[in-house]
Amino acid sequence: MIQTRLTKKLGLRHPIIQAPMAFAAGGRLASAVSKAGGLGLIGGAYGDEEWISDQFDAAGDEQVGCGFITWSLKEMPQLLDRVMERKPSAVFLSFGNPAQFVEQIKTANLPLICQIQTLRDAKHAIDVGADIIVAQGAEAGGHGEKRATFTLVPEVADYISAHAPDTLLCAAGGVGDGRGLAAALMLGADGVLVGSRFWASKEALVHPNMLQAAIDANGDETVRTNVVDVVRKIKWPERYDARILRNGFADKWHDDIDGLTANLEAESENWAEALTVGQASIANAFVGEVAGIIRDIKPASEILSDIVCEAEVLLKHEWK
Amino acid sequence: MIQTRLTKKLGLRHPIIQAPMAFAAGGRLASAVSKAGGLGLIGGAYGDEEWISDQFDAAGDEQVGCGFITWSLKEMPQLLDRVMERKPSAVFLSFGNPAQFVEQIKTANLPLICQIQTLRDAKHAIDVGADIIVAQGAEAGGHGEKRATFTLVPEVADYISAHAPDTLLCAAGGVGDGRGLAAALMLGADGVLVGSRFWASKEALVHPNMLQAAIDANGDETVRTNVVDVVRKIKWPERYDARILRNGFADKWHDDIDGLTANLEAESENWAEALTVGQASIANAFVGEVAGIIRDIKPASEILSDIVCEAEVLLKHEWK
Repeated sequence: MIQTRLTKKLGLRHPIIQAPMAFAAGGRLASAVSKAGGLGLIGGAYGDEEWISDQFDAAGDEQVGCGFITWSLKEMPQLLDRVMERKPSAVFLSFGNPAQFVEQIKTANLPLICQIQTLRDAKHAIDVGADIIVAQGAEAGGHGEKRATFTLVPEVADYISAHAPDTLLCAAGGVGDGRGLAAALMLGADGVLVGSRFWASKEALVHPNMLQAAIDANGDETVRTNVVDVVRKIKWPERYDARILRNGFADKWHDDIDGLTANLEAESENWAEALTVGQASIANAFVGEVAGIIRDIKPASEILSDIVCEAEVLLKHEWK
Repeated sequence: MIQTRLTKKLGLRHPIIQAPMAFAAGGRLASAVSKAGGLGLIGGAYGDEEWISDQFDAAGDEQVGCGFITWSLKEMPQLLDRVMERKPSAVFLSFGNPAQFVEQIKTANLPLICQIQTLRDAKHAIDVGADIIVAQGAEAGGHGEKRATFTLVPEVADYISAHAPDTLLCAAGGVGDGRGLAAALMLGADGVLVGSRFWASKEALVHPNMLQAAIDANGDETVRTNVVDVVRKIKWPERYDARILRNGFADKWHDDIDGLTANLEAESENWAEALTVGQASIANAFVGEVAGIIRDIKPASEILSDIVCEAEVLLKHEWK
């Protein structure tokens, strides 16, 4: 057992939060993680109310939280009301200013988890009242920014230590096994947020072909890019891009966004169809550099216990 | 004391190699690190033979190694002969194919340290006979590529474990204190390469104004860019860029390389002059994201012992 401030604050057996990955993190994954002793989060994504409700149903009696894309939630703030009615165990906000949602979450006495990508945003999230900061490095899959887990975590830890010692800190981006958990703890985190490794689980809502593409890839084969937002016609704020698995589609358009825009209708249709049927040469897997150490698809409970067991051994090693 | 395969192989007291930073890592820094129990390396940079010779003189009786920019060394391979005459304790090669230099280094029975930035290049360096792989993440200061320390290290560790178990591995990029050393060990490294933190030492050959700029900066304020190579008229292979401290110069030209090229003569003169006089609004500090946790300039021996002491405490922590 690895006990930290995070396990104590949230009443978890393990200091592991499952990332609320858009589309992939449904109720089955979230409940499996919570049941196994971590904190499972449904991915609220771009705010499909019916889908989110279905996922809370799928989670059953297990306590799970919900994550939102903050700038998207602002466009439909009533969605938070609906989710609050499902009594989530925590609310997770990333990619935007969380300020307007803080009071509602605090009033309900729920832990507010704010994911940030820069020291500047960490300071802001702490100022507005985040209980837990998730410092996300650019190695992460999906949306994010430029800074690296290895340096962002200790820098935020120092800031917290000096200015907000009761705030907790988790590391996100690159954590896929016990080495990552142990390293994150050394860097000053109280726990970790795990995305890609849970994306590659039996319970995640991902087409098997996309999973296979990620297993086949090494960590050199991902890229941060805007192509997936352009082709999906999702207007992300300019500061964010997304790490995806490279494929023919990404290689063709990454340096030619104008070309992609000029062919948008046809490309969008193709990409969406490819995602549905699992054509991994066109649709992209949203997976981080950690894909390079992901070699199988396992149940979430097994992923979680493997991470913890490996970390326990490493943390007890004597360096002599 | 933290003993690893690296300390045993190289006969070091501490598993810490000082990065052979161009211009900054002279003989005084390298010898101070070696004397304190790490491995000090003179930065061979772009091959100024007289400067390198002077730095070996400055190192005195202390055993130090030397690092080269591989693609630059290829343009003047006789430089390796000159350095070999100084009986370096190790040779470090980064940024290019090391193959043509391996036999000479091996024949002299010297440890060959190859820094790589991708899994692909790690495989190649192992194939040609590297004794120690340094896996460098993009958070590092100075030249490098895109991958992150946090994911590159465990992935290379897995490759080494499966294919070349006698090869050693160090982590580079983001290691500036004991948290970084401890985290690197957890990720599967046998030791670390420390650049920026030693750049910010009493012995480094850096203008005090540039040091102050790095101390004043947080980790959000660096950028990977080509502007410094363009303005210095150094033809780096396209795959590499350099992480530097942002300033007015970088902000003006980073997205306008064509503009910089059009004004090259004047800008080059200004930049070189600014570097000489320590005008940090124009010349750039070559420092990594770890600048955010660097808050003072200390003697290299103190930096080294602080890193080790902090890591020792962390590695003994009981997580309960």
